[in-house]
Amino acid sequence: MTGKVEQFTEERKAYNEILARYANSSQKRFYGLDASTYEEGALDKKTKELLGFVASLVLRCDDCILYHLIECHKAKVDSKELAEAVSIGLLVGGSITIPHVRRAMKVWDEELADS
Amino acid sequence: MTGKVEQFTEERKAYNEILARYANSSQKRFYGLDASTYEEGALDKKTKELLGFVASLVLRCDDCILYHLIECHKAKVDSKELAEAVSIGLLVGGSITIPHVRRAMKVWDEELADS
Amino acid sequence: MTGKVEQFTEERKAYNEILARYANSSQKRFYGLDASTYEEGALDKKTKELLGFVASLVLRCDDCILYHLIECHKAKVDSKELAEAVSIGLLVGGSITIPHVRRAMKVWDEELADS
Amino acid sequence: MTGKVEQFTEERKAYNEILARYANSSQKRFYGLDASTYEEGALDKKTKELLGFVASLVLRCDDCILYHLIECHKAKVDSKELAEAVSIGLLVGGSITIPHVRRAMKVWDEELADS
Amino acid sequence: MTGKVEQFTEERKAYNEILARYANSSQKRFYGLDASTYEEGALDKKTKELLGFVASLVLRCDDCILYHLIECHKAKVDSKELAEAVSIGLLVGGSITIPHVRRAMKVWDEELADS
Amino acid sequence: MTGKVEQFTEERKAYNEILARYANSSQKRFYGLDASTYEEGALDKKTKELLGFVASLVLRCDDCILYHLIECHKAKVDSKELAEAVSIGLLVGGSITIPHVRRAMKVWDEELADS
Repeated sequence: MTGKVEQFTEERKAYNEILARYANSSQKRFYGLDASTYEEGALDKKTKELLGFVASLVLRCDDCILYHLIECHKAKVDSKELAEAVSIGLLVGGSITIPHVRRAMKVWDEELADS
Repeated sequence: MTGKVEQFTEERKAYNEILARYANSSQKRFYGLDASTYEEGALDKKTKELLGFVASLVLRCDDCILYHLIECHKAKVDSKELAEAVSIGLLVGGSITIPHVRRAMKVWDEELADS
Repeated sequence: MTGKVEQFTEERKAYNEILARYANSSQKRFYGLDASTYEEGALDKKTKELLGFVASLVLRCDDCILYHLIECHKAKVDSKELAEAVSIGLLVGGSITIPHVRRAMKVWDEELADS
Repeated sequence: MTGKVEQFTEERKAYNEILARYANSSQKRFYGLDASTYEEGALDKKTKELLGFVASLVLRCDDCILYHLIECHKAKVDSKELAEAVSIGLLVGGSITIPHVRRAMKVWDEELADS
Repeated sequence: MTGKVEQFTEERKAYNEILARYANSSQKRFYGLDASTYEEGALDKKTKELLGFVASLVLRCDDCILYHLIECHKAKVDSKELAEAVSIGLLVGGSITIPHVRRAMKVWDEELADS
Repeated sequence: MTGKVEQFTEERKAYNEILARYANSSQKRFYGLDASTYEEGALDKKTKELLGFVASLVLRCDDCILYHLIECHKAKVDSKELAEAVSIGLLVGGSITIPHVRRAMKVWDEELADS
């Protein structure tokens, strides 16, 4: 069975091929920047992905949240650390973020937690 | 046939069980606050649910809008009162809220109005 | 001494004269709508102003918050009712609304509460 | 086969019938304004639809984006012009807009580009 | 007397010197993109500045609005064209944008209109 | 001479006294949560303050940004680490965040950097 994580990753690849077909140079530079900004530097990868996750949560974009959730998992964020990042997003962004937390934690529970 | 309202209510329960499994104490206190803030007080239940509905509408969260729409119905908000709350949300939040109004009014029309 | 409320009301009048000078018919209809939407109807004036206040709070616009705070005061909203409206805005919109709550409550405390 | 554009247009019509059933006069005036504001005037239709498209993109509403994308196509916006409008929305609104750009460009690619 | 436009332009220069002192390569690339994205291309300068203006208006950032207002003026946008762009921003973004429209039109009236 | 940091800290204290005077129990619990959520836990203080800073930056609240900037400084965030956090906020939130970055970096430059 294909999980939500795999399906999202496949679709993202297909979408990005369409994006590349129509993007002008400004867009291409933006997409390049999107890739490089999260690379390890003065802050480690884990911190940067947590920053991307919380920024996405308070701005309430499911796809962005899921992307950074997967990256957080790859960077060894555990369930306790994730819960604290979520609690900051929830507090700053308010109850309007709760439906997004719900959808994120469902994927975390079913496919990412402790794996 | 299962309606949108029943389906939403079921899913919400399932989601909340997942939330509870991973929530830290900060999140738990936030979720508790979410439940108690709408209780009758100096303002009556109906006014509070209308406030929750309009806040959700201008912030454009479908799940939050649907939740408060159902609570407004329980608190005896009628179609004329709802229309006035919607018109305030629409005016303050702009035409960007229209797709959310459409989805809310479809559920209202099919499952909640005059029932 | 001129208070914040009087100063805001004066400035708003001067601004609106400039707006009228450049507005096209679409803008004029919008401004007309802004005035009529809060008129008493199926919902009373007080409820409507509370809806405008909370919508402004979660969208975090100081001028809109102050305008509806003054209108709430005119519609006989008292400090306890205001506190409950604020608590809904705070919960839905998150801690990012706190600086706006601070500025609103300062004006309420100095010029509007119990007067 | 029914495409995304045709499906969206049909659904929009059905939704608007529901809206009309419950709308008060304030809402009706708002919907009328929504229709007339994009009519050709000092700015041509094409520019106005591009403005509606970019406003919808930075506010991140898929339905609004799709509506204005279709209208941009009718107003003869070509792929190069669209790419520049997208690049402004992307820059101003940030990477949080990317999932919306993806969904818009998929419809553009499959049903609107060069047709 | 120093006008608002001149003061803003001076301050912006001073701020940008501070930004440059602390910016990492990711930020520098972002700022470079910010400059190049509005250059004339498939869309002319005037259309691009109107897009930047309306995007800034619906996202409600006074500094961004003022920057693009000045650029719109340099690109020969006249008062009638500006009014139509404003009416789109107002409609899409709602009455919450009105205080920003007020501040923008005051600068337009005092320093930019018909000059 | 009183710096911006000291002035902000003083004003915040005065504001909070007004808040306490009118807050209902829901608000009080929210403010208590605001204080405890950033305490060291599975994530260290520094990471949590960076999360608060970036969340505040993408939501574009100057007071919240300044508060977390000061807390980041106390938690030993250095200029290089701050630059990386800023670059993530800038990328996710877009150029609309730039004026807020400017104001934050001015305070950082004048009162916090390397001190």
